[in-house]
Amino acid sequence: MAVSTKPASGTRDFLPSTVKARRLVTETIRKTYEAYGFVPLETPAIERIEVLTGKYGDEGDQLMFKLVKRGQKLPALTEKTQPNDLVDMALRYDLTVPLARVVAANHGTLPRFFKRYQIQPVWRADRPQKGRFREFYQCDVDFMGTTSVMAEATVISAVAESLGKLGFDKFDIVINDRRVLTGLMEVAGVAEEMRTPALVMIDKLDKIGADGVKNELSAAGLSQASIDVLSELVLEGATSLDDVEAAFESASEIGAEGAETLRTLFGLLKAAPIKAGTALFDVSLARGLSYYTGPIFEIRVEGLSGSMGGGGRYDGLIGMFRGNEIPAVGFSLGLERILVVMEDRGMLSDTSTAPDLYVAMMDDVMGSVLSFCSQAREGGLTVDAHPQKAKLGKQLAYAEALGTKWVAIIGEREADAGNVSLKNLDSGDQQTLSWADAVAAVAAEG
Amino acid sequence: MAVSTKPASGTRDFLPSTVKARRLVTETIRKTYEAYGFVPLETPAIERIEVLTGKYGDEGDQLMFKLVKRGQKLPALTEKTQPNDLVDMALRYDLTVPLARVVAANHGTLPRFFKRYQIQPVWRADRPQKGRFREFYQCDVDFMGTTSVMAEATVISAVAESLGKLGFDKFDIVINDRRVLTGLMEVAGVAEEMRTPALVMIDKLDKIGADGVKNELSAAGLSQASIDVLSELVLEGATSLDDVEAAFESASEIGAEGAETLRTLFGLLKAAPIKAGTALFDVSLARGLSYYTGPIFEIRVEGLSGSMGGGGRYDGLIGMFRGNEIPAVGFSLGLERILVVMEDRGMLSDTSTAPDLYVAMMDDVMGSVLSFCSQAREGGLTVDAHPQKAKLGKQLAYAEALGTKWVAIIGEREADAGNVSLKNLDSGDQQTLSWADAVAAVAAEG
Repeated sequence: MAVSTKPASGTRDFLPSTVKARRLVTETIRKTYEAYGFVPLETPAIERIEVLTGKYGDEGDQLMFKLVKRGQKLPALTEKTQPNDLVDMALRYDLTVPLARVVAANHGTLPRFFKRYQIQPVWRADRPQKGRFREFYQCDVDFMGTTSVMAEATVISAVAESLGKLGFDKFDIVINDRRVLTGLMEVAGVAEEMRTPALVMIDKLDKIGADGVKNELSAAGLSQASIDVLSELVLEGATSLDDVEAAFESASEIGAEGAETLRTLFGLLKAAPIKAGTALFDVSLARGLSYYTGPIFEIRVEGLSGSMGGGGRYDGLIGMFRGNEIPAVGFSLGLERILVVMEDRGMLSDTSTAPDLYVAMMDDVMGSVLSFCSQAREGGLTVDAHPQKAKLGKQLAYAEALGTKWVAIIGEREADAGNVSLKNLDSGDQQTLSWADAVAAVAAEG
Repeated sequence: MAVSTKPASGTRDFLPSTVKARRLVTETIRKTYEAYGFVPLETPAIERIEVLTGKYGDEGDQLMFKLVKRGQKLPALTEKTQPNDLVDMALRYDLTVPLARVVAANHGTLPRFFKRYQIQPVWRADRPQKGRFREFYQCDVDFMGTTSVMAEATVISAVAESLGKLGFDKFDIVINDRRVLTGLMEVAGVAEEMRTPALVMIDKLDKIGADGVKNELSAAGLSQASIDVLSELVLEGATSLDDVEAAFESASEIGAEGAETLRTLFGLLKAAPIKAGTALFDVSLARGLSYYTGPIFEIRVEGLSGSMGGGGRYDGLIGMFRGNEIPAVGFSLGLERILVVMEDRGMLSDTSTAPDLYVAMMDDVMGSVLSFCSQAREGGLTVDAHPQKAKLGKQLAYAEALGTKWVAIIGEREADAGNVSLKNLDSGDQQTLSWADAVAAVAAEG
């Protein structure tokens, strides 16, 4: 047959041990988020197209997977038909726009300080490449309804503790503030319309270095005076929060406001220390910029290019479906990015899906086998059984390939006597035991 | 803003307590399936269109959500463009065809008797109606690689035990065999091409009664002699497996084969009794018929029209991507159908997502609040905190609305003294305690 059996480009099948690894990670994150008072939300994979379009910019609209209208809703096709006439829904592109929709739809029933987490897949028709997929999971945590920096401190702590519980002991939580960036532009005298392009260039500091950024800024038409200020404050060496505060004093009100918020935030992270990771100020962190209005943050781990997750305050987005603003702070961890590092470092310990006990069937004793399996499960074991007669060696090899340590062998003799022959595949030891004793032996030794 | 904030037609947002209820159910099913030696599989929501088309019949192809091609892959639109030229992928319609694809793609690495479970959403562009959704979850369990009736006994027991663990004590597992139905057609002398239509009519017995079915059979051109045989064996009153066996003796080889399999299956279900539910033979059970080749089964629960789940043996389907047959037995539970009954019956006990402890903040003591929260979480509690100052009454009302029993109040006095004022919202009692004692008190009383 000509049909390829590969999953669609950029998507993956998760075989059992991979599902188990992924679940270990998501359960750890879920439990940590819940300990911080976040509650779960799940939204549909598909959204009406008008809910999604225009929220992610042109690039986002291009990358959306769109659903073709069904049946009579599909217009007659002519030269005049526009591609957008064909579609009425799309797969969600992130978990934030659906959140905004849910908050608007359930206004008045949700708590004022709605703290939700959401661990679900999103879809982007990106060009697939190593470590970048078209279906991938986001682990989002968002704190709504307050402008208090308690929200920032809470999401940062929750994310840091999740990573700590997963076994990450060294990582950086890099923090900046959108207003600090605006302040920098102000003190450097960069014209309003040049600020976003300039910040996009500064955001490349890690990749192209200070000289690279300066060349780009110059090519974009920034004055040498502006470049000199940016160079001093951002591009050359470490700038502390003190430096930034000094530069903003009486020179940028908005910058000073951002710096003050960061001062409070770092104070809180000191008062209730995050258990894993190090919170650092980095004046060059820009994070795409699109909808952030206050503090922004990003997780960086050695050996991973790009970030493992990021977020920030976005006071304009959640209210967009209602027309009024609802302040919000969010942090999103990329499940795939976490897994890639954990795999590289051998941090995923037990991903075996082998049953505790395998039952080999030597004769036509299906009833006895099923009955023994039932008793073993009641004893708390996970149990698999060979569904048909076969040579013992073959059945033992099958159990070994599964990764099981214990095999209970039942033939006519055992069925008649009501016992089993229990074999330890590690040691090779084998002994005849009553059903109850066999179950107890496996349960005890594990 | 004009954009509706409702989820797309036929889809739903799951707010926190609903997510919790759904998770309680899926976790119970998951653990039970795992105890039976089934291992998890997850596949992408989107599949290449050629993987899905033609597998579900015309109706299925109509009901698929298809993705429009992106960018340059989309052809120029003209009168000659066919709707199918526009699409290259679709959302999965069930979990069985993706399973068949995965088995083919991983042939040689999967165990011979691959026993997988899969709990994921599927999408169908059905007309939305009460209890029928366009995005819904299936909880599938499939046993591959053997023609042994151990496979049927295993999936039936696993499903029955899952329902038992969920609290269902009375339900019917209705069982028949595709070959028994063929045998019936043979002994009734129904012509080959009339068999499928006749079975579709018989499948309506519950809805339109014996006379209704007889009228339809007659209108379809079945002879009175045929109708009389079907009437005796299927339509009028209970037909036992004994009756069917007697009717097939030397009259239908395939019917006798099916009856013999059922005899063995019921024997096994007696030898290793299913703990919840009653296994019943029902000669009128037909289950759509499409791809089943042996035993078929269905879960029926009082108060639910239609079934809560169903399945059967389908030896032709799994191998379709490889060209060779791989025998398989599957059983699929509908998560939404289970939940609808559990909700109706009040079987969902604790779906509260309230934190164990709420922290009220009376003054500018954010650091102390965060620090105390941290200690409480280390003590195993889930903790939420008011992110900003407010009147105590307002904060207590907020905690009460969340459903929390305990509130720890921290103002400047408590922060300075290193204690909290712990209030029990049920009793109204309040006492000043050290942080450790407060955490211990909440942990102890729950």
